[in-house]
Parts: sequence; C-alpha cells; structure tokens
Amino acid sequence: MLQKTNRLTLVEQVVLQMEALIESGTWPVGMRIPPEPALMADLNVSRNTLREAIRALTHAGLLQTRQGDGTYVCSSSALGVMLHRRILRTNRLHTLEVRHALEREGAYLAAQRRTDDEAHRMLVLLDNCESALARGETDRYIAEDILLHQCIISASHNEILIELYEHIAETLESLITSLIRQEAGASVHSQMHRQLVEAIVRRDVDEAVEVVHRYIAESKAAILAEGSEIAALSGNLSDIESR
Amino acid sequence: MLQKTNRLTLVEQVVLQMEALIESGTWPVGMRIPPEPALMADLNVSRNTLREAIRALTHAGLLQTRQGDGTYVCSSSALGVMLHRRILRTNRLHTLEVRHALEREGAYLAAQRRTDDEAHRMLVLLDNCESALARGETDRYIAEDILLHQCIISASHNEILIELYEHIAETLESLITSLIRQEAGASVHSQMHRQLVEAIVRRDVDEAVEVVHRYIAESKAAILAEGSEIAALSGNLSDIESR
Repeated sequence: MLQKTNRLTLVEQVVLQMEALIESGTWPVGMRIPPEPALMADLNVSRNTLREAIRALTHAGLLQTRQGDGTYVCSSSALGVMLHRRILRTNRLHTLEVRHALEREGAYLAAQRRTDDEAHRMLVLLDNCESALARGETDRYIAEDILLHQCIISASHNEILIELYEHIAETLESLITSLIRQEAGASVHSQMHRQLVEAIVRRDVDEAVEVVHRYIAESKAAILAEGSEIAALSGNLSDIESR
Repeated sequence: MLQKTNRLTLVEQVVLQMEALIESGTWPVGMRIPPEPALMADLNVSRNTLREAIRALTHAGLLQTRQGDGTYVCSSSALGVMLHRRILRTNRLHTLEVRHALEREGAYLAAQRRTDDEAHRMLVLLDNCESALARGETDRYIAEDILLHQCIISASHNEILIELYEHIAETLESLITSLIRQEAGASVHSQMHRQLVEAIVRRDVDEAVEVVHRYIAESKAAILAEGSEIAALSGNLSDIESR
C-alpha cells in the first residue's frame, strides 16, 4: 500500500529528534550537546539545517548557546518554558488559583491511586515537616513541604497534571515561602497537611478534596490580607503582582 | 544612571514584537502577515534576521508559510500550541482530569466574580440547552453546551485559567460530544448544569464546587464504562486513548 509522503522538512525532523532526546532526559538539563560535526554526521544533515534546528530549539527555550563554549540543554519541557513565559505576564493571584486547581485534582487522584510506597513516603515527609516546625527550622520545613507537595502530586499518576503543576509551582515558590514564614501560617499549614496526608493514606477521596479546599481558602485569604486592602476591596487584584 | 545593556539579539527582539502582535490579536489568526520588504523597513532589520524570526515563530506554531503564497498566522497562543502538542502524547482520561481541575476552579471563581451580565448570559444559554434537549436537537444542544462552559470559565476573570481551559477543551470536544450523545447522559448533564448555573447566579461558592465535583464524577464514570472493562479493572486506562 502507498504511504503518505512525509511532509516534515529536514529542519523539522531534526527539531523533533533533538526534542525527543531532551524530553526523555537522554540529553539532560545542563548537558553540553555534541559538537556540530558529530551531529551533522549522526543526523546526516548539512551545517545550515543543523544550525536552524538548534536556533528553533533555542527560541523554544530548550537549548542555550554560550558564545565560544557550546550549546547546552537548559530545559526539558517546551510546555514548561511556554507556561513559565505566560506566567511572567500573569498576576500571582491568578497563577495561584491555577496551582490550586491542579492541587485539588492531584489530591483527589492521589487518594484513589497512591501506592503503598507513596503513602509511606508521604507520612515520612509529613513527620519531617512537623519536626522541622517544632524545632523552628524554617528553611528545612519549607524544603520538606515542597517535597511533600511533589509526592502528593506524583501519586496522582497523571503525567500532564504533574508537568503543569511542576512548572507553575516553581514560579510560586517565593510566594509560598513568604506565607510559611508567617509563624501562624506554618502551624495551620502543617495541621492541614496532616489531615490531607491521612485522608490520602486511607483513600478517603472526599475528605482529601475537602481538606485541600480548606487550606487553599486559608492561603488565599492570607495572600489577600498581605496585599493592599484597597486592591482586595476594589477587585483589582493584579497589583499584588507588583510587590 | 546607567541602564543595563539589552542582551536580546536582534532576532529575539523581532520574535517578541511579532509575538506580541499575534497574541494581542492585532495580527489575527488567518491573516497573511505583511510582505518581507514592508516588515524589513518597519522593523529596520535585514532579510536574514527577519527570516530567522519568522522561522522561529513557525517552529513555535504561531506562523505557517505557504509555498508561493505568503506567511499566515495560524495560532494566537504559543502556550496553546505547546499544550496541544503535549496533549497529543497524553491519554484522554488524564487530559480530562486536567480539564476537570480547571472547571472546578472556574466554577468556584465564577461564583465569586461573575457580573450580572454574565449571570444573565448563563441563564439564557442554559435555557437554550434545555429547549434543544427537549426538541431532541442534539447538535444544537452540544453547541449551546460548549458556549455555556466557556461562559462559566470566562466569569472566573482569570486569564491563564481561561487560556489553559480553552486549549484543553478543544482537544476533548469529540469525547464530550460522544458522551452527550448517549441519551441518558444528556439529561443528567443538563440537570446538573442547571444546578451549577443557579449556584453561580446566587454566588453560592460551596454549592458550585460541589455540583461540578458531582458531574465530573458522573462523566468520568461514563467514560470508564465506555472503555473496556478490563482496562478499567487493571488500572491501565491509557487504552481508552486508542479508541
């Protein structure tokens, strides 16, 4: 039977191949990609074709060329790069709302799909959070808290949810950190995390969603209280952004 | 005071300017962009610089060059293009879960932020849905239903939530359509939509979230029932994809 002709240009084919190497981690973030002559030989393309493909991946934010040095992998996800660029133009309250949406669904799915190993790891991370808090080790608390959130989201076993969450979460880390640094914030935060993890561990889907819903409402209230009251009252929330 | 030197290359500056024209809708989807000589003069750049910028935007999925014709705008959102490409590699159940996450948050925010005009429009669209259903006009029902969902999400007044939802929703339209075509599905669907719209109209945030939560659980159950039972039982949900 006849097959459809391949409509991809040579450059597009090279872009897709290199993208696949980057996204699969065969070319990990931070790696210097092989020199031009090696790539030209491996891909069987001209220098111009290769350079154009590299430039396309540079514009997409996956590669970075350092003058006089070489070309490095700087991100593993083209979606992540675009999401990051989009978020830079978005106010932080709106970004936080999208994060919340993903967290709520993540908790819901984690309560259904978590493995026993994942449940065990959540309980360990939760203990670490609580003991860091008890000892007043804020930096350690924040680090363990981030690991706990990642662990819950991974237990959703939904790759696209995990990817979107990861890129949104990293842009919000400083905001979350400043909230946790308020003493009262951290202890409320920590209690709710225990309720959430326990709900996921006993596969209580409704309770997991309910707890996330409550702590989201709390953290949003804290952010709005931090923002100028005028901004909150007038509904013009975007100026939280400028702080 | 001295200012930081601008580290953007000429090509990057041209890319950003053209991207802004596309994303703002000044260059709408479907438009043929001005010819090279005009752009070279307006931007004060060489032909090579301009061509490289156009190729970068082509790889990003915003422009498309048609041999012997010209270059056309084919999408207004680089994030949307990346999300679309990512979703093509994701199973549909997982994509649906992300859509649900955004819908739930959208309903929650709409119940807080909807204007009176938006509330009015939701009620009109809801009436249209119900009368289409009563007359057995399935295509009309589906069209009005999509408009209703968009209207609810827009009432969240969260631009990034709206943008992510739009691009996820379009890839799922055929799936949703097939669900609604099951007769029982449509009437349950329609009743829950009335409950949801009424909750948003009376600004009942908790009820809005609760209703979305219930109809999501229903539609997911329907999708799993449609998929092979073996797939659902074994937890290997990805083969719903292949249908």
